[in-house]
Amino acid sequence: MLKRDFNIHVDDQDLLDEAFTQASYVNEHRDQNLKFYERLEFLGDAVLQLIVSEYIFTRYPKLPQGRLTRLRAAMVNEQSFSTFARECHFNKYIRLGKGEEKAGARDRDSLLCDIFESFVGALYLDQGKKVVEGFVQQVIFPKLDEGMFAEFFDHKTELQELAQEDGPVDIDYELVDEYGPENDRLFKVNVAIDHKVLGIGVGHSKKDAEQKAAQQALKHFDKREDNLV
Amino acid sequence: MLKRDFNIHVDDQDLLDEAFTQASYVNEHRDQNLKFYERLEFLGDAVLQLIVSEYIFTRYPKLPQGRLTRLRAAMVNEQSFSTFARECHFNKYIRLGKGEEKAGARDRDSLLCDIFESFVGALYLDQGKKVVEGFVQQVIFPKLDEGMFAEFFDHKTELQELAQEDGPVDIDYELVDEYGPENDRLFKVNVAIDHKVLGIGVGHSKKDAEQKAAQQALKHFDKREDNLV
Repeated sequence: MLKRDFNIHVDDQDLLDEAFTQASYVNEHRDQNLKFYERLEFLGDAVLQLIVSEYIFTRYPKLPQGRLTRLRAAMVNEQSFSTFARECHFNKYIRLGKGEEKAGARDRDSLLCDIFESFVGALYLDQGKKVVEGFVQQVIFPKLDEGMFAEFFDHKTELQELAQEDGPVDIDYELVDEYGPENDRLFKVNVAIDHKVLGIGVGHSKKDAEQKAAQQALKHFDKREDNLV
Repeated sequence: MLKRDFNIHVDDQDLLDEAFTQASYVNEHRDQNLKFYERLEFLGDAVLQLIVSEYIFTRYPKLPQGRLTRLRAAMVNEQSFSTFARECHFNKYIRLGKGEEKAGARDRDSLLCDIFESFVGALYLDQGKKVVEGFVQQVIFPKLDEGMFAEFFDHKTELQELAQEDGPVDIDYELVDEYGPENDRLFKVNVAIDHKVLGIGVGHSKKDAEQKAAQQALKHFDKREDNLV
């Protein structure tokens, strides 16, 4: 599965098993001297924090610390990690005790988040940081472009910060069109910086359209680099 | 200074300057197009989290997750980082605005902690993780052996957890001696596991002596490795 989906090879199968084993399973198989995932989760959490930090630090070279911190918090949390774990089909591989299985732990966000971290911890120990970066580049980073964290990413504030970095400028949002039926109304907004239109956005609310216009305008300020440091 | 004290060389002097520059200084020197340390602090924080996590994960291979987390929190915080920053004489190199200087920011724990992190962020970008590990091995890790985090490190609990890992055992603490003047009394405590004395501790309270006895006994269970993974 790892090989097929992510082109990842793991040498130490025991370590990988540990990453997917909950304490309840260990307790039911005391004769097998198994380990459960928690220590690997501790390590994986720190690995993910650093790799995500490094990526957004490099990708958004002008984003101030406070916003980097908020973006990282939006990316590194139970909700997003459990989503990633499901997308990777990690839920299939978790080893649970019978009671936990019955209680529905296999689909619990908190467990899936833990397992995502413990898997990363195991991968890091087994294959090193570069391989984890390759995995994260497939699983987490594309979500940034797909808008998964858009709600945490306030483009209007970002635009204001970037545009005014070299001194004050005029930023104006203008509603230029409104169309569609009452119950499915669409709004079109332009954003202009010093009277030059740099972005257009369409959305189901003016606020949403403004965010999208700002997002488009941001491309004029973007010094993205596509590679991890 | 870095060269002499830590055998560290930094290629990008601008990056190093950035790590030691507070926003107040940047504001007073707008013509110089300077950057302040905050983004580097964001990165350095994550670097330190991972390196410390990895070290204690490896050094204490049987420490459960909860205690790893507590130990990391004891090592990675404002109090300890500001101490390290002072020991490294980083306070001398901070560039502050006049107002902040007057207000005594140079000796403020919160600033020193930030600067410790931003320095690590700069070092990481400039020289990579191995060099940061070398620095941390000189500055932070020896503190573990010197007992800097002892108050957070409950040896009695740790001993109990390790000793009982393969089944229940008897752990007994016995006061074997008491001496010295009333106002400077010393207590001597033995700890025995299944009636075999494994540690002796002396302290100004029974509790302290028990902790020290437990710490000594822990050596029998220690599978430390001295190298970072």
